[in-house]
Amino acid sequence: MPKPIYILNGPNLNLLGEREPHIYGAETLQDLEKRVAARAKAAGYATAFRQSNREGELVDWIQEAREKGAAVIINAAAYSHTSIAILDALKAVDVPVIEVHLSNIHRREAFRHHSYVSAAADGVIVGLGPLGYDLAVDAAISLAKSRE
Amino acid sequence: MPKPIYILNGPNLNLLGEREPHIYGAETLQDLEKRVAARAKAAGYATAFRQSNREGELVDWIQEAREKGAAVIINAAAYSHTSIAILDALKAVDVPVIEVHLSNIHRREAFRHHSYVSAAADGVIVGLGPLGYDLAVDAAISLAKSRE
Amino acid sequence: MPKPIYILNGPNLNLLGEREPHIYGAETLQDLEKRVAARAKAAGYATAFRQSNREGELVDWIQEAREKGAAVIINAAAYSHTSIAILDALKAVDVPVIEVHLSNIHRREAFRHHSYVSAAADGVIVGLGPLGYDLAVDAAISLAKSRE
Amino acid sequence: MPKPIYILNGPNLNLLGEREPHIYGAETLQDLEKRVAARAKAAGYATAFRQSNREGELVDWIQEAREKGAAVIINAAAYSHTSIAILDALKAVDVPVIEVHLSNIHRREAFRHHSYVSAAADGVIVGLGPLGYDLAVDAAISLAKSRE
Amino acid sequence: MPKPIYILNGPNLNLLGEREPHIYGAETLQDLEKRVAARAKAAGYATAFRQSNREGELVDWIQEAREKGAAVIINAAAYSHTSIAILDALKAVDVPVIEVHLSNIHRREAFRHHSYVSAAADGVIVGLGPLGYDLAVDAAISLAKSRE
Amino acid sequence: MPKPIYILNGPNLNLLGEREPHIYGAETLQDLEKRVAARAKAAGYATAFRQSNREGELVDWIQEAREKGAAVIINAAAYSHTSIAILDALKAVDVPVIEVHLSNIHRREAFRHHSYVSAAADGVIVGLGPLGYDLAVDAAISLAKSRE
Amino acid sequence: MPKPIYILNGPNLNLLGEREPHIYGAETLQDLEKRVAARAKAAGYATAFRQSNREGELVDWIQEAREKGAAVIINAAAYSHTSIAILDALKAVDVPVIEVHLSNIHRREAFRHHSYVSAAADGVIVGLGPLGYDLAVDAAISLAKSRE
Amino acid sequence: MPKPIYILNGPNLNLLGEREPHIYGAETLQDLEKRVAARAKAAGYATAFRQSNREGELVDWIQEAREKGAAVIINAAAYSHTSIAILDALKAVDVPVIEVHLSNIHRREAFRHHSYVSAAADGVIVGLGPLGYDLAVDAAISLAKSRE
Amino acid sequence: MPKPIYILNGPNLNLLGEREPHIYGAETLQDLEKRVAARAKAAGYATAFRQSNREGELVDWIQEAREKGAAVIINAAAYSHTSIAILDALKAVDVPVIEVHLSNIHRREAFRHHSYVSAAADGVIVGLGPLGYDLAVDAAISLAKSRE
Amino acid sequence: MPKPIYILNGPNLNLLGEREPHIYGAETLQDLEKRVAARAKAAGYATAFRQSNREGELVDWIQEAREKGAAVIINAAAYSHTSIAILDALKAVDVPVIEVHLSNIHRREAFRHHSYVSAAADGVIVGLGPLGYDLAVDAAISLAKSRE
Amino acid sequence: MPKPIYILNGPNLNLLGEREPHIYGAETLQDLEKRVAARAKAAGYATAFRQSNREGELVDWIQEAREKGAAVIINAAAYSHTSIAILDALKAVDVPVIEVHLSNIHRREAFRHHSYVSAAADGVIVGLGPLGYDLAVDAAISLAKSRE
Amino acid sequence: MPKPIYILNGPNLNLLGEREPHIYGAETLQDLEKRVAARAKAAGYATAFRQSNREGELVDWIQEAREKGAAVIINAAAYSHTSIAILDALKAVDVPVIEVHLSNIHRREAFRHHSYVSAAADGVIVGLGPLGYDLAVDAAISLAKSRE
Repeated sequence: MPKPIYILNGPNLNLLGEREPHIYGAETLQDLEKRVAARAKAAGYATAFRQSNREGELVDWIQEAREKGAAVIINAAAYSHTSIAILDALKAVDVPVIEVHLSNIHRREAFRHHSYVSAAADGVIVGLGPLGYDLAVDAAISLAKSRE
Repeated sequence: MPKPIYILNGPNLNLLGEREPHIYGAETLQDLEKRVAARAKAAGYATAFRQSNREGELVDWIQEAREKGAAVIINAAAYSHTSIAILDALKAVDVPVIEVHLSNIHRREAFRHHSYVSAAADGVIVGLGPLGYDLAVDAAISLAKSRE
Repeated sequence: MPKPIYILNGPNLNLLGEREPHIYGAETLQDLEKRVAARAKAAGYATAFRQSNREGELVDWIQEAREKGAAVIINAAAYSHTSIAILDALKAVDVPVIEVHLSNIHRREAFRHHSYVSAAADGVIVGLGPLGYDLAVDAAISLAKSRE
Repeated sequence: MPKPIYILNGPNLNLLGEREPHIYGAETLQDLEKRVAARAKAAGYATAFRQSNREGELVDWIQEAREKGAAVIINAAAYSHTSIAILDALKAVDVPVIEVHLSNIHRREAFRHHSYVSAAADGVIVGLGPLGYDLAVDAAISLAKSRE
Repeated sequence: MPKPIYILNGPNLNLLGEREPHIYGAETLQDLEKRVAARAKAAGYATAFRQSNREGELVDWIQEAREKGAAVIINAAAYSHTSIAILDALKAVDVPVIEVHLSNIHRREAFRHHSYVSAAADGVIVGLGPLGYDLAVDAAISLAKSRE
Repeated sequence: MPKPIYILNGPNLNLLGEREPHIYGAETLQDLEKRVAARAKAAGYATAFRQSNREGELVDWIQEAREKGAAVIINAAAYSHTSIAILDALKAVDVPVIEVHLSNIHRREAFRHHSYVSAAADGVIVGLGPLGYDLAVDAAISLAKSRE
Repeated sequence: MPKPIYILNGPNLNLLGEREPHIYGAETLQDLEKRVAARAKAAGYATAFRQSNREGELVDWIQEAREKGAAVIINAAAYSHTSIAILDALKAVDVPVIEVHLSNIHRREAFRHHSYVSAAADGVIVGLGPLGYDLAVDAAISLAKSRE
Repeated sequence: MPKPIYILNGPNLNLLGEREPHIYGAETLQDLEKRVAARAKAAGYATAFRQSNREGELVDWIQEAREKGAAVIINAAAYSHTSIAILDALKAVDVPVIEVHLSNIHRREAFRHHSYVSAAADGVIVGLGPLGYDLAVDAAISLAKSRE
Repeated sequence: MPKPIYILNGPNLNLLGEREPHIYGAETLQDLEKRVAARAKAAGYATAFRQSNREGELVDWIQEAREKGAAVIINAAAYSHTSIAILDALKAVDVPVIEVHLSNIHRREAFRHHSYVSAAADGVIVGLGPLGYDLAVDAAISLAKSRE
Repeated sequence: MPKPIYILNGPNLNLLGEREPHIYGAETLQDLEKRVAARAKAAGYATAFRQSNREGELVDWIQEAREKGAAVIINAAAYSHTSIAILDALKAVDVPVIEVHLSNIHRREAFRHHSYVSAAADGVIVGLGPLGYDLAVDAAISLAKSRE
Repeated sequence: MPKPIYILNGPNLNLLGEREPHIYGAETLQDLEKRVAARAKAAGYATAFRQSNREGELVDWIQEAREKGAAVIINAAAYSHTSIAILDALKAVDVPVIEVHLSNIHRREAFRHHSYVSAAADGVIVGLGPLGYDLAVDAAISLAKSRE
Repeated sequence: MPKPIYILNGPNLNLLGEREPHIYGAETLQDLEKRVAARAKAAGYATAFRQSNREGELVDWIQEAREKGAAVIINAAAYSHTSIAILDALKAVDVPVIEVHLSNIHRREAFRHHSYVSAAADGVIVGLGPLGYDLAVDAAISLAKSRE
C-alpha cells in the first residue's frame, strides 16, 4: 500500500467555517478532512491530515512527510507569506508538493500576494475554496504515480 | 444543453510541445485540446478551445464568452503579466473564470510572478502542466453548476 | 470644410453601458457617438468615431488621424497604462490631442494612475463620464481653431 | 437663485500672466476671473473666485464652500501635490468638485504627477490653460444640476 | 460576572526590568501584571495575563480569548512586525482589541515602525511604558461596555 | 497652580461630528473640549484647547506651549503626515508630548501610516475616538507629574 | 541557397523619415529596406523585411522565422519595452537574433532603458541610426555562418 | 541706491539660540540679523530680514522680493523639504537666490537630505552655522553685481 | 570551570548531511557537534549544542544562555532572515555572540542576504561549511577570555 | 592622415581568453588588437589600443583622445556600471564614441544592466564578442567621416 | 606660520574652462588656483592646490592633509557620488573639511544629488562657480581659526 | 614549498590603529601583518601582505595572486561596497578567497551592508577585528589544502 498523502494546514485554519465565512466558506476543517480522505481513499491512498498554529510544528511535519509521505499538500495560511523555514523544509522534500489556498490571495492585501511556499511547490491551486483541496488530492496522486 | 466552456490560450502556446519542453512539456496544444474536450464532454459540456498571439483577439473572445460561455478557462501566457485590457474584459464576465499556467510562474523570472488575470479569476492553477487544464475543467464545471 | 475630429476608443469600451455601470455609466458607446457627433457638427466639424480592442489598430488610426484629422480625442482605456506604442504614435501627431477617461482613474487601482497617453496629450479630462467627451470636443475644436 | 460656484486658486496663481508664460499663458488671474464669472452667470450661477498662497486659508474656503457653495472648482497649484489637509477638507464636501490645472502636470517634474486633490474630485481637467476653467464651469454646473 | 480581559505578551517581555531598561523601564512583568489586574478588578473585570516567546502559542491564546474573553490587550513585541498569523487570529476576534507597546516604536529602527497587529486593533497605545497598559485596560473596559 | 495642558487640534477637526461620522464619530469638538477640560480640572490642571487649519499657527502654539504649558496633547490631523515644521517645533519642547488620532490611521490609506509627530512624541494613542483624548489627558498629567 | 534573414520592425517605424527626424533620421523605411537587402544579397542572403504596428503580428513573424529564417534582426520599437510575448517568441528561436534600435534608448526616457528583447538577443546594437541595420546584417550573417 | 537683499527665514528659526544649540549654535536670530545687515551695508546694500512659521507668508515675501529685492537669501528650514509652493515662488524670481542651512542637512535624517529650494537656487551653502549667512551675503552681492 | 558555550542551530539543520548536500555538505549535525565539542573542550570549555525548528524555542535558549553561557554561537538558518524575536533576545545577551552560516548566504537568493542576527552579533562567519563552526568556537573563546 | 581611433579597454580585459571563456570567448586581447588594427588600417585609420585596470588612467586616456583621436571605442568593463568619472570625461569628447561589450550585459546580473558610458556614447554594441569590436571600428569610421 | 590649506580637485576638473562651459564657466583651473592662493595668502595661509583623475590619489592626499594641513577644501567631482573610499579618508581628518561644487548638483541628473563627501564635510557650498572656492577659503580659515 | 597566501588590504587600512579606533581597534597594519605572517608560517605558508588606496592596484594584485598565490584573503574596505572591477578580478581566481572585515559592516551605515566581494568569496568573516585575519588564515590554509 502506498505511503499516505500529508495534508498540512497552517495557522487559524482550525477556525474554518467560523472565521470570515465570506472569505473562507462555511465548511469546517473536519468536514474538509473527511471529504478529501474519502477522495484519496477511492484512489488507494491514505491521508495524514493535520493543522497547527506553529511554524516549527509544520516544519517538523514536512520533515516527517519527507520520509513517510507519498506527497505533501500544504495550505500554510499566514506562514506562506513569512516562513523561509517552511520553504527550506519543503525544498528538502522529493515527493510531489501541492500548495493550496482557499481564498484567492492575489485579490487580497498586497502582503498575501507572495508565497514562499510557491517556490518549493510543484503546483499551486488558489481561490477555489474547499474544492481546491479535492483538486490538490487529484494532482498529488497523479504526480505521485507519474514519479513512481 | 449548457453553453460551452471557453478555453482561451495566449501567445506562443501554439508552440506547445516544441518550445522549451523542459518548461512546458512535450504534449502539443492539439493533444491538450482533445483531452480536455473529452473530459468536459463526459461532464456534459462542449468546449470552445482557441489560441491567439494577439491581445486584442483574446479580449474579443472573452467578450464573446461573456455572452455565450458557461465558464472561461484562460492561460493568457505572456499577456498575463502585461495586459490590463484582458483584466478589464474578464472583470465584465459573470461566469466562472479559471486561470491556468503550465509552468510554475513563481519559480521563474520576477516579471512572471504577477498576473493581472489573477485579479479577475475565481481560481488559479499553476505549475501542473497539462494536468492543470484537466483540473481547471473540473473546477469550471463545478463552479458553473453551483452558480446555476 | 475642416478635417474630421478623430475620436478613438480603446479596449472594452464597446461594452459601455453594460460593463460595471457603477463606474462607467449606463449610456452606450453608440449613444455617446451620436451625441458628440451632433455637438461637433454644430461647430462645423465632422467626426470619425471608432473603437477597437487592439493596440495596433489604435496605432494605425492615430497615424491616419495624423494626416487626415483636425484633432484627436482618445480614450485608450486599459492601453493608456501600458502602451508605449500609442504614446509614440501620438507624439508624431501635430494636431491637438485630448485624452479622456470616463472614470476618475486616480481613485482606482494604482496601476491606473499613470497614463502614457498623458505625456503626448495637450489636455486631459478624467472622471466626468460621457460629459467628458462633450468637453473634449469643445476643447479639441477650440485648440484646432487657435492653431489654424 | 442657486448658491455660487467656488473657484479656488492656490499659491502663485496670483502671478498668472507674469510667471513662466511659456507654461501658464499670458492671461492674468483677473482676466480669467471675469471670463469664467460671465460664463457661469450666463448659466444662472454666481461665482466666488479667490486666490491664496496659504494652505490653511484654502482649507477654510473649502469648508465655507461646503455649506455655501453649489460646486467647487479648485486649482490647488503646488498644494495639489503636498496637501492632505486640502484632501481631507474636500472629502467633507458633498457638492461637485472639479480639479483644474493650467499646465499638463503629467509632462512636468515627477513630483507634479500625483495630486491629492484628484482623490477627492469628481472630475479633473489638466493642460488646457484658461480654457480648462471654462470647461470646469460647464462641468460643475452640469453636475450640480444633475444632483439637484 | 464578565469574562476576563486577556492581556497577552510576546517574546522577550519576560525579561522586562532586566533587558535594555533605558528602553523598557525597570518594572518587571510580574509587577506589571499585579498592577493591571488590580486596576481591572476595581472596574469589575478579571484578567488573564500571559507571556510567550512562541508565535503559535500567542495565536492559540488569541483564539481562546475569542471565545472566553471580554477584550484582548496585546503587546506582541517582535512578532508585531512579522506575524501575519497573529493578525489573522485577531481578525477573527469580535471583542475589543487594544495594541500596546512599551517603547515608542516609531522612534526606533525602521523595521519596528510597521505593526501587523495595528491592522486588527481597535486602538493602539505606544511609548508610554507600563502606564500604557493601565490606559489599555481603561480603554478595553470602556469599549467592552459600549459594545454590550 | 500648574501650567495648563495644551491640547492642539489640526486641520478639519473643527468639522468633528459633521465630517465622515463613520470614521470620526458624532461628538463635536466643543463637546470634546468640555469633557477633557473637566477631566483635567479634576486632576488640578487647566487646559488650553485650540484648533487651526494652518500649519504655521500650530507651530506658533507649540512654541507658546514650550514656555507656558505643562504638557502638549496634539492631534495634528493631516499635518501629522506632511509637516516637518511641526516636528521641529515639537522637538524643541521639553514638557511631555502626547500624540492622539481619533481614527486608527494604520487601517487607512498608506499615506496616513507615517506621522512625523510620532518621532517627537513621548506617547501615541490612536484609534480610540474621543476616548483617546481622555487617556491622553491622563497620560500627560502622569508624565508631567513624574518629571516635576 | 540559405534561408532569408528576417528583419522585423515594430510600431511606428513605418513613419521613419517623417516622425521626429532629429531622433530617427530622414531616411524612410523603404530606403532602409533597399539598402540592407542589397548588403545581405552581396553576402549571399535574401531578406524578409517587414513592419507591423501589432504585437501579435510580430509574434507570428518571429514564429515563422523560427522555421524559415537564417537569422532574425528585430527592432521592436515601443514593444521592446513592454512585450513579454515577443520575448517568449524569441526565446523559442534557435537562429541568431540581433536587436537594433535607431536611437540611443539609454539617453531617452527611463521607460526606454529596459528592453525585454535584449534578454533573448545574441547581440544588441543601439544608437547608430540606419547604420545599425547594416552592422546587424553583418553580425547576423557572421553568426549564422559560424553556427552552420 | 540698490534694492535690498531679502533674507527670509522659515519655521522655528525664531528659536535660534534656544532650540537644540548643539545643532544650531547659540547665536540668536536677532544677533544674526544685525551682523549680516552690517556686512551687507558695508557693501552698499540694505537688507530685509524676516522670519515666519507660515509657508504662505514665505511665499508672499518671495513674491515681494521678486519685485523689490536685489537678491533672495533663504533658509526655508523645515519647508525646504516639503514645500513645492516655495519652489514655485522662487522659480518666478529673476534676481539671485542663495539657499542657506545652518546645520549640515546631509548628516541628519534622510528626509532632510532633499530640498525643493535647491532646484530654484543659484547657490547653496549648508552646515556652516551663522557663518553661512555671511557667505551668502557675499555671494548674493557678487551675483547681483554681475547681473547688473 | 567556565560556563559552557551555547551552540544553537535553527530550522532544518537537523537534516544536515541529507538536505541539499551540494550546498550544505555531507557531514551530519551529530558529527559536527562532536567535533566542535572536542575543540572547545581542548580549550577548557564545555558546549551546549542544540537544534530546534521553532523560533520560540531558540528564543528560550538564548535567554538561558544569557544567564548560563560563556558565549553564544548561533546559526539561526531560515530564522536569521525573518526573526526580530531572535534579534531582541540576542540584544539582551552580554556574552560574545558569533553568527555562523554554512553556505555563503550572499551568493544565494536575495531574501537570504539580510540577517537580523548580524545586528546583534559580535562577529559573523559565513560560507565556510562546518569549518565555520570551528572558527566560531575559536572566536567565541577568544572573545570570552578577553572580556573576563 | 587622420587621427587614430582610440580603443580603450577597462579592468580585467587583459585576462581575455583566460577568464570565464564561456562568457568572453577564447581570443586574447592581443589577438583582438591585431585584428581591429588591421581592419582600421584598411580603412585608412591608425589605432591606439590600450587596456588599464585603473579608472583614473582610463579618464586620462579619454582626455587624450579628446584632443588627439578621430573617435573613441570604449569597453569600460566593470567601470561601465560604476564610473561617473568616465562618463564626465566622455561627455567632454566631441568625436564619435562607441561603447562595446563582449558579453550581453542585459542577460547577466542586474547591476550590469545599466552603463553610465551609454549616456555619453553615440552608439552601443553588446553581446557580439570580438565581432563587436569589428563593427565598432566600422561604425566609428563611418561616424567620423560623416562629421568631417 | 600655519599649515597650508589643501584644495583637492577630482576628475576632469583639469578640463575646467574647456569642458561644458555653460555648466562650469570659462575660468581655467590654473586661474582658479592663483586666485584662491592669493585670497588665502592675504589671510596668512599657504595653499596646496592639486587635481587628480584618480580616486586613490585623492585618498592619499586626504591622508596627507590629515597630518600636514590646516583644512581641506575638496571638490571631488564625479567621485563625490561614488567614492566611499574618499568618505572614509575624510572621516579620519580632524581639521575643517569644506566641500565645493562649481555647478548646482541638485539641478542636474539624479545620480549627482547625493554626495558621500557631504557626510564627512563640515560645510558644503554648491552652484556658485569659482566664487564657491573663494567662499570655501573664507570658511575654511574661519573654522580653522575657531578650532585653534 | 607552497605558493604564498595573498593578504590584500584596501583604502585607508594603512591608517589602522589611528583612524576611528573605537571601530577598528588600536593595532596597526604592521602589527597585524607580523602576526598573521607568523601564523601562516607556522602552517608552512608564506604571505604576501599588501595595502593600497587604489582600486586598480588591488585588481592588479588579485590578478597576480591568480597565478602566484595559494589563496587570497581580502579586506577591500570601502571598495567592497562599490567595486565591480574587484569582483570581476576575484571571479577569475581559482584558489580559495576569504573576505575579511574588521568591523561588523552589518551594524554600520546601510551602504556598507552589501559587499560585491562576498559574491566571489568562498567565506566571509566580519566583525572580529584583527582576530578575523587569524581565522581567515586558518580558513585559507584549510581550503587550500583540501583543494590540492
